[in-house]
Amino acid sequence: MVRPKGVDHLPVKKDAVDFDVRVRYVDTDQMAVVHHGNYILWFEVGRTEFCRSRGFTYRDLEDMGYRLMITDLRCLYRKAVRYDEVVTVRTRVKDLKRRMVTFGYEILCKETGTPVAEGETRHICLDRSDKSRTIPEHFRKCLERNVDGMVWERPEQQGIENSGRR
Amino acid sequence: MVRPKGVDHLPVKKDAVDFDVRVRYVDTDQMAVVHHGNYILWFEVGRTEFCRSRGFTYRDLEDMGYRLMITDLRCLYRKAVRYDEVVTVRTRVKDLKRRMVTFGYEILCKETGTPVAEGETRHICLDRSDKSRTIPEHFRKCLERNVDGMVWERPEQQGIENSGRR
Amino acid sequence: MVRPKGVDHLPVKKDAVDFDVRVRYVDTDQMAVVHHGNYILWFEVGRTEFCRSRGFTYRDLEDMGYRLMITDLRCLYRKAVRYDEVVTVRTRVKDLKRRMVTFGYEILCKETGTPVAEGETRHICLDRSDKSRTIPEHFRKCLERNVDGMVWERPEQQGIENSGRR
Amino acid sequence: MVRPKGVDHLPVKKDAVDFDVRVRYVDTDQMAVVHHGNYILWFEVGRTEFCRSRGFTYRDLEDMGYRLMITDLRCLYRKAVRYDEVVTVRTRVKDLKRRMVTFGYEILCKETGTPVAEGETRHICLDRSDKSRTIPEHFRKCLERNVDGMVWERPEQQGIENSGRR
Repeated sequence: MVRPKGVDHLPVKKDAVDFDVRVRYVDTDQMAVVHHGNYILWFEVGRTEFCRSRGFTYRDLEDMGYRLMITDLRCLYRKAVRYDEVVTVRTRVKDLKRRMVTFGYEILCKETGTPVAEGETRHICLDRSDKSRTIPEHFRKCLERNVDGMVWERPEQQGIENSGRR
Repeated sequence: MVRPKGVDHLPVKKDAVDFDVRVRYVDTDQMAVVHHGNYILWFEVGRTEFCRSRGFTYRDLEDMGYRLMITDLRCLYRKAVRYDEVVTVRTRVKDLKRRMVTFGYEILCKETGTPVAEGETRHICLDRSDKSRTIPEHFRKCLERNVDGMVWERPEQQGIENSGRR
Repeated sequence: MVRPKGVDHLPVKKDAVDFDVRVRYVDTDQMAVVHHGNYILWFEVGRTEFCRSRGFTYRDLEDMGYRLMITDLRCLYRKAVRYDEVVTVRTRVKDLKRRMVTFGYEILCKETGTPVAEGETRHICLDRSDKSRTIPEHFRKCLERNVDGMVWERPEQQGIENSGRR
Repeated sequence: MVRPKGVDHLPVKKDAVDFDVRVRYVDTDQMAVVHHGNYILWFEVGRTEFCRSRGFTYRDLEDMGYRLMITDLRCLYRKAVRYDEVVTVRTRVKDLKRRMVTFGYEILCKETGTPVAEGETRHICLDRSDKSRTIPEHFRKCLERNVDGMVWERPEQQGIENSGRR
């Protein structure tokens, strides 16, 4: 297996965390579907719950004086979602560097499994004075951890920084 | 003229400040009208612009270590508003006490002048440690100031604090 | 027991429905607490889940050609809520008339039970042409139904329509 | 000049439309900066005002039975924005095909001109039955029109579908 180049390029585990969200009335717009801006908020809920299920809360990270500022966002919209439907937000770590982490998301219709959207967000770790910092050890370990065991894998190529057409 | 009772009951000027807001697509819901939650955000824009037109910004107040925490909110909805329409938010001070201020709002359809909603919000002045404090002198003077001159008037009776059941 | 006056004044059951909501990052503002506008959206979630637990969805009602347009809103804010906390939205029907329904809400900190806010919203039943209509029989029965049995009670006095100045 | 390949690949004019937006309190989060989800809403305001300044409103398009459903979204975040600051949303058409249009956005700090974010959104034209349709002639002409005259230019390569790293 070819290991990624670069000292700060950590291996990433593949497993995802699922979290269900029900569409609220306020999430709809006059097209009678969920307004596209809400998918971005679902991504945020997804990574919050990803962290929680890995044994860390984003709130803890902020209490420690760090935060993950978003630098890049992509979303592909595949299918409209309607009021009162439930979607599953499936979140994984797509890339993990010393000071950066990229989360990937799939949004699925819970009832049918149909893909609704997919996307990714990249974040840089900052301290309270807005200086970029190494992601704290404990938090990084939580992001790396694979529930299925110690399968180390090459991060997929399609991180935001390497992507061709998505 | 009868002065209001109570040492902390300051006279309030009547003039209002108008500010126009255009309905964004995201503000609509699947009824094809503005979702009712947005009126509350328009109230906030209204009081921000009220302060600015009186010579103070709410941002300055926060920079001085104070903030106006909302304690009560009322809104009466009269008429639906649609995407891309422009509404006028008309804001005035309805009551001003030593540590509290009540703003009143009318929302009007700009084109026709039809009332769309009305409401009020009451706020208490807090410092950084969440202790209630006297509204800073300069800020209070700005709230009191009447653009038309020195007409001192009895505050209207219908402030939130005098209403029936609360 | 004194029955309420008026032919369209239906007895209301008292039991409430609880629903938990976790504070999202986007719900906070720069005071580092939940922005006051979000409480209004929690009320909406509360009444949606109230209806669902009573055997009806608001979506069904809209599919039948009806909708409940909000006419009045009140909210009292008691305590700030922070990111990642869980609140319980406790919803009940406070008043039920032929064409109108008033929901009451309490928001509590789930962990401590501390009251966070309370409020109420009044709604009028409209058809697709915006004409006010009698609330459909089946839906009204669901709103009336008391899980504890057939205790008919006088609606509390403090519904929006009886309050002092509005 | 080399014309773009493909029968449905229309030439695009370069000029942009600027529109100013003031940051509302509700737009901030507990980092004391604008929450990243709001940039997406600013993009929407930007393209609405782009259309208006070109002689068409998006509302008209919907009234004609068409809508532009978003299929792709990208945003690069460069600099935080704070409460009460004013940003300029600079919108242009980046690519125009028979049934698709890609808008590009720059968000700048109005006072300093510093880039705050940039992004693009791609949209497909649908009719009321969700079938993809040719963008109506009059609307397409408005999108194509260049205020400076008849300079026809090759669309830039960096539409979402062709992009490498952005």
